[in-house]
Amino acid sequence: MTKRKLNNLREGIENLPPNPVVLVTVADNIMTAAAFHSYSKNPPCLMVGILPEQFTLELIRREKEFGINIPTADQIETCLTCGTVSGRDADKYEKTKLTPGSSDTISSSLIEECPLNYECTLVHEVDFPGNLQWIIGEVKAVHIDDSYKRDRALLYWGREFYNVGTLIDKW
Amino acid sequence: MTKRKLNNLREGIENLPPNPVVLVTVADNIMTAAAFHSYSKNPPCLMVGILPEQFTLELIRREKEFGINIPTADQIETCLTCGTVSGRDADKYEKTKLTPGSSDTISSSLIEECPLNYECTLVHEVDFPGNLQWIIGEVKAVHIDDSYKRDRALLYWGREFYNVGTLIDKW
Repeated sequence: MTKRKLNNLREGIENLPPNPVVLVTVADNIMTAAAFHSYSKNPPCLMVGILPEQFTLELIRREKEFGINIPTADQIETCLTCGTVSGRDADKYEKTKLTPGSSDTISSSLIEECPLNYECTLVHEVDFPGNLQWIIGEVKAVHIDDSYKRDRALLYWGREFYNVGTLIDKW
Repeated sequence: MTKRKLNNLREGIENLPPNPVVLVTVADNIMTAAAFHSYSKNPPCLMVGILPEQFTLELIRREKEFGINIPTADQIETCLTCGTVSGRDADKYEKTKLTPGSSDTISSSLIEECPLNYECTLVHEVDFPGNLQWIIGEVKAVHIDDSYKRDRALLYWGREFYNVGTLIDKW
C-alpha cells in the first residue's frame, strides 16, 4: 500500500470515517451535531462538540440541560435544515414540522419523530482548547421505539452523508 | 411512534448507533478502540476512550504519544484479536501478522496495513469521571492511501460490527 503524507493536518481530520449525526435539543431550539459520542456507560454520559458561537451552546449553558435525539437516514433534510439555520433567526420546529415532545426530567423538548431520545443534564465542559467546545451530559432518561435498529442511523463526516451498511459480525 | 422508557440507562448507551472503530498503537502494542472521535480541527486533535486498567493507557501515559490507525471493514478479525487479547500477554503484531511501520514524529509504530494513520502526542486527559478515561492527542502527521474512501471503514457499537452503507447526500 502506497501512502502519502498530508501537508495539511486539518485535511487529515476531514478524511476520518463517518459517524452518527444527532439532533441536539435545548429549550425550544434544535441543532444538528456531527461531533457526538458516548462518554461513559457508568455513569451514563454522552458528549457533544459545539462551535463556541452557536446559539445552542449559549442555551445549554443557560438551561444546564439538553436532549440528544437520534435521527434516521430518511431524516436527512431535517438534519440539513437544523444544521444550517440558526435558532437565533428561526423556530426550527416550525421550519422542519417536527413535533416537540415532552421530557420527564428536563424542561427542553425531545423530538417525537426521532426513534431514540436521551434526556441529559450538563455535568462538565472539557477544558482543552479546540475549535469545538465539548460538553458532557449525564443521561437521566432514555426513550426508545422498539422497532428502531442501529442500522437506520444517519452518518456524516467531511461533507458527506452515509447510511449504515450491513451487520457483518457480532461479538 | 410508540416509545418506551428504559429503566436501565446503561442500556440506553448500548442502543446508540455504530461508530468507527480504530486501532490505537503505542510502543509495540495495538488496542482496538470503539470509543473514538475527532476532538478539534484547529488545532487538529483526536480523542479516544480507554478503560483505566488497559495496558494501552499505561503505555500512552508513559510514552506521551500514540498512533490512530483506521482499519477497513475486511480487517474485522484483526480488530477482534486486538480488542480481546492484552498486550501484557502477547505480541499483537506477531499474533495478527500486521506490519509495524515507522512514524515521522513519534516513536510508536503505525500499522502499515491500515490505509489511514495519525501520529499523535498526548496533550490532555479529560477530567470528568466515567468508566472510560478519555485522552486527547494532537495530530502531528497523517498518512493516507489515496485509494481509501470513508465508506470502507468498520463501524461498531453494542457488540455489533457494521460496514458503512452508501453515500446518500453531500453538503
